[in-house]
Amino acid sequence: MLPKTNRQVRLASRPVGIPEARHFEIAEAPLAEPREREFVVRNSFLSVDPAMRGWVNAAQNYATPVGIGEVMRSYSVGEVVASRHPAFQEGDKVTGQLGWQDYATTSGGGVRKVRDTDLPLSLQLGVLGLNGRTAYFGLLDLGQPRPGDTVVVSTAAGSVGSAVGQIAKLMGCRAVGIAGGAEKVRLCREAFGFDAAIDYKAEAELASAVGATCPAGLNVYYDNTSGAISDAVMQHLAVGARVVICGTASVASWDPPPLGPRVERHLLVKRARMQGFVAFDFEHRTDEAVARLAAWVREGKLRYREDILDGLEACPDAIAGLYRGDNLGKRLIRLAQ
Amino acid sequence: MLPKTNRQVRLASRPVGIPEARHFEIAEAPLAEPREREFVVRNSFLSVDPAMRGWVNAAQNYATPVGIGEVMRSYSVGEVVASRHPAFQEGDKVTGQLGWQDYATTSGGGVRKVRDTDLPLSLQLGVLGLNGRTAYFGLLDLGQPRPGDTVVVSTAAGSVGSAVGQIAKLMGCRAVGIAGGAEKVRLCREAFGFDAAIDYKAEAELASAVGATCPAGLNVYYDNTSGAISDAVMQHLAVGARVVICGTASVASWDPPPLGPRVERHLLVKRARMQGFVAFDFEHRTDEAVARLAAWVREGKLRYREDILDGLEACPDAIAGLYRGDNLGKRLIRLAQ
Repeated sequence: MLPKTNRQVRLASRPVGIPEARHFEIAEAPLAEPREREFVVRNSFLSVDPAMRGWVNAAQNYATPVGIGEVMRSYSVGEVVASRHPAFQEGDKVTGQLGWQDYATTSGGGVRKVRDTDLPLSLQLGVLGLNGRTAYFGLLDLGQPRPGDTVVVSTAAGSVGSAVGQIAKLMGCRAVGIAGGAEKVRLCREAFGFDAAIDYKAEAELASAVGATCPAGLNVYYDNTSGAISDAVMQHLAVGARVVICGTASVASWDPPPLGPRVERHLLVKRARMQGFVAFDFEHRTDEAVARLAAWVREGKLRYREDILDGLEACPDAIAGLYRGDNLGKRLIRLAQ
Repeated sequence: MLPKTNRQVRLASRPVGIPEARHFEIAEAPLAEPREREFVVRNSFLSVDPAMRGWVNAAQNYATPVGIGEVMRSYSVGEVVASRHPAFQEGDKVTGQLGWQDYATTSGGGVRKVRDTDLPLSLQLGVLGLNGRTAYFGLLDLGQPRPGDTVVVSTAAGSVGSAVGQIAKLMGCRAVGIAGGAEKVRLCREAFGFDAAIDYKAEAELASAVGATCPAGLNVYYDNTSGAISDAVMQHLAVGARVVICGTASVASWDPPPLGPRVERHLLVKRARMQGFVAFDFEHRTDEAVARLAAWVREGKLRYREDILDGLEACPDAIAGLYRGDNLGKRLIRLAQ
């Protein structure tokens, strides 16, 4: 039996820049039985991702912004609890963009059945989810790492960055992480096996530190931050380097775009490439990525950390917390079942 | 009979930024008969290229800087007038980096025989030379234009830009030029067949002009300028756009790098690519490029303009003149024979 009501986290007002607790409200909506070709998912875990900032801002982005009063868009993972859809049965574990809410009624668009049910369900939102696939496609397809390459990644202790570093190692590369604070740097080295990690908060001259750590320059830079960290890294590109633009966590607002040192000369002199991507463009290859990532997890070659908050009440402040650097590992909201 | 002396333009002091007349001196050196496996070329035309700024600056570049007191490095084209080299005979027309001087003694490294002797010799330094090949490889290999694409090029009336626009048209693209001044804009439209041309000096809101000219965004930006022109163009990238970084004519000095609006968000949202290149990296494909370019010239599909200065005395100020925008077309120095 479905409950009569469903709790939801809705966008209450439109933020400029980072969405904070005050931009959301928790409300109840009626929950109905699914109609023909629909099913209802009870969410077990909700995802909190840096990209969600872009989903609620009015500025031009790769996705239509969430409307005011709408349920906050997010990935989640859960279990089918009622179904009139031929392809989804009660008890199926599923993941998709099911929103920040206890229950989601869906016709199945963009919803995948979880195959790797031997692994914890929460991994579908982290190392096997958008984060893992973002690391996988960005590094392998855009970064094109070759054995012996030096791969530098920013926000290296985060869920994307830590996967990038470990996949770089699996590809025969030297992995160098940049992270903020001694604890994250230690995580990079000890938990995730980076060859080196730089604490950007402790370095007076970050560019010099990057240069000292990458004496022959770096072949791939997987950029999750933009800003001063990237400015330092860009000074040490090797000839033919690939810069993968995945996120811009260090930039609070792009309206107007902040100023930074122009990159054209670096790109020209080093015949280097900077390329942006969004993991959504690779959705047709989700099965490939999840299968490889899951195999690496089972073999112990791809490790992860989770930062789990409890209850829907934790949602509104959860994105701002990411940008404050509160979390060590993939941030999730766990819902009571 | 060779003359006893050879006039040379030498680098007299190291410029910071654009090399000016005061950084060069004209001097005479003895000219000897070639030794075994050497030959002597009498230069007919010397090239003047924006890239020469980089060849004399101390800042990190893709080539070792010209030393103080050395003959200024340049491309030239001329005739073999004495030879003890088995592969080069008196009377052969040749081109290579033979320097700003009347005569060059060489063992043939990087020197090519001119095949297209039905076409004017000066074209070896322009539309069939470094400029043409720079347009060819940058547009085709990095820009990867597809029929129907909109291709925007800066310094569109220049020798590289005009070739880029015409090759874009040959590939089935819409060509949009950006140039400075009414005369250059008219040249783009009338002489080089661009579909549209924008006078950046006449536009109060260049970004709006680019947007109005490219309502569906632009697929390829061939960037010869960097600076404010590029900032305007970057606002109108189409999804999947390719930005080819060929030159940075609008930036007077890269030490320190000037500030500009950060590009990461454009690259991310548009899944776009920015890539630098230097034509030297494609030297192994020179024959391919020159053969195609020469065929297009013969068919009247690839037009060019030349800006010819007379005599070695014109050399010292010639690079600064390029950056002042003095020239309309490929700048060359013609030597009396």
